Amino acid sequence: MSEPWLSTLKTDTAQAGWELAVKMSRMGVKVTQPSDEVRKRLRGIYENDADSLIASSQVIAINFQTIAAANGYWK
Amino acid sequence: MSEPWLSTLKTDTAQAGWELAVKMSRMGVKVTQPSDEVRKRLRGIYENDADSLIASSQVIAINFQTIAAANGYWK
Amino acid sequence: MSEPWLSTLKTDTAQAGWELAVKMSRMGVKVTQPSDEVRKRLRGIYENDADSLIASSQVIAINFQTIAAANGYWK
Amino acid sequence: MSEPWLSTLKTDTAQAGWELAVKMSRMGVKVTQPSDEVRKRLRGIYENDADSLIASSQVIAINFQTIAAANGYWK
Amino acid sequence: MSEPWLSTLKTDTAQAGWELAVKMSRMGVKVTQPSDEVRKRLRGIYENDADSLIASSQVIAINFQTIAAANGYWK
Amino acid sequence: MSEPWLSTLKTDTAQAGWELAVKMSRMGVKVTQPSDEVRKRLRGIYENDADSLIASSQVIAINFQTIAAANGYWK
Repeated sequence: MSEPWLSTLKTDTAQAGWELAVKMSRMGVKVTQPSDEVRKRLRGIYENDADSLIASSQVIAINFQTIAAANGYWK
Repeated sequence: MSEPWLSTLKTDTAQAGWELAVKMSRMGVKVTQPSDEVRKRLRGIYENDADSLIASSQVIAINFQTIAAANGYWK
Repeated sequence: MSEPWLSTLKTDTAQAGWELAVKMSRMGVKVTQPSDEVRKRLRGIYENDADSLIASSQVIAINFQTIAAANGYWK
Repeated sequence: MSEPWLSTLKTDTAQAGWELAVKMSRMGVKVTQPSDEVRKRLRGIYENDADSLIASSQVIAINFQTIAAANGYWK
Repeated sequence: MSEPWLSTLKTDTAQAGWELAVKMSRMGVKVTQPSDEVRKRLRGIYENDADSLIASSQVIAINFQTIAAANGYWK
Repeated sequence: MSEPWLSTLKTDTAQAGWELAVKMSRMGVKVTQPSDEVRKRLRGIYENDADSLIASSQVIAINFQTIAAANGYWK
């Protein structure tokens, strides 16, 4: 499978947790489409499609749920 | 990545938590499409599309789950 | 942002909780499309579209998860 | 809003909980489209559409999560 | 409603839990489309449609969340 | 049903948990479309479709929620 990239779910801040959620969402795409070239081409499409952007935001939201729980919500 | 914008998940009220959920949903779009101009153009499309609006409401609902849990449901 | 409308997640009954979930789902649409006129027009479309109705039911289900947890499932 | 129909999330069995999840999913449609006649007509469409059926199954699954948690998973 | 089929969420193994999640996902389709004949016909369509297959996998994932929690994750 | 493949939700690391989430997402497709040949053909389609890739990432995110919870978030 892909190169290891996920060493921990712990982050120092909520901001860093959210950025990890963004990364996880992108890695979920990359594991299915490993070609940087193809993903770059597709990016030109979906970044101009409102529904794709909303769907992307949803995947980030789901990953953020996991990370926030893992960090006790940074309380 | 983007400018830091998420300092905490804690909010004083349920209303403020819901507004943070709206912001998180929008930031999830912005991280994929950073151009204010493009997002403004797309907004003209999806704000007139029932399915896009329902999908947006769903992303807010998912983010609100996280924020509500982080705040112990403001009990 | 919008007028405050969410003072608490606590409700006396499961029924009232479910009705709050319906309201939250609608407010998630309204925050993106604030025009009553436009929403009314769109309503004429999605209330006659099976997939839109199923999607609406899903948003209610997600919001209800949050409210039910906030109320200890009204046990 | 609609006639009260949800008195409790407690059910005696997992089967009854699942049936309540089905009912909740349908009520989520009915609250947006109250006309029995329109829903009946739409039913003729979505019950012959694979994607609509899969989406319906998903809404039931989400509602069942809530009900199962409310019942301590009937342990 | 349908014949009872869900007696318990407890399973001996994670594998059996996953198989129950598959069954629940299919029963969520069957409750809306009870005809074996129609479902068989639709199956010929969605089993050759990538998006339908991904959506099916998602419903299984949601049902598995419930079953895994009900079994204390088989620890 | 399919050959047993899920012996445990426990993994040593977050990375291994994420890889299990990817596997679970694929098995959710395979259980509906068991033919390696058909899945290979469909793969050629969805790996070039931005929305399919985002949807795949979402299924992984949902499965990862379950696995992360099962492992106490690898704390």
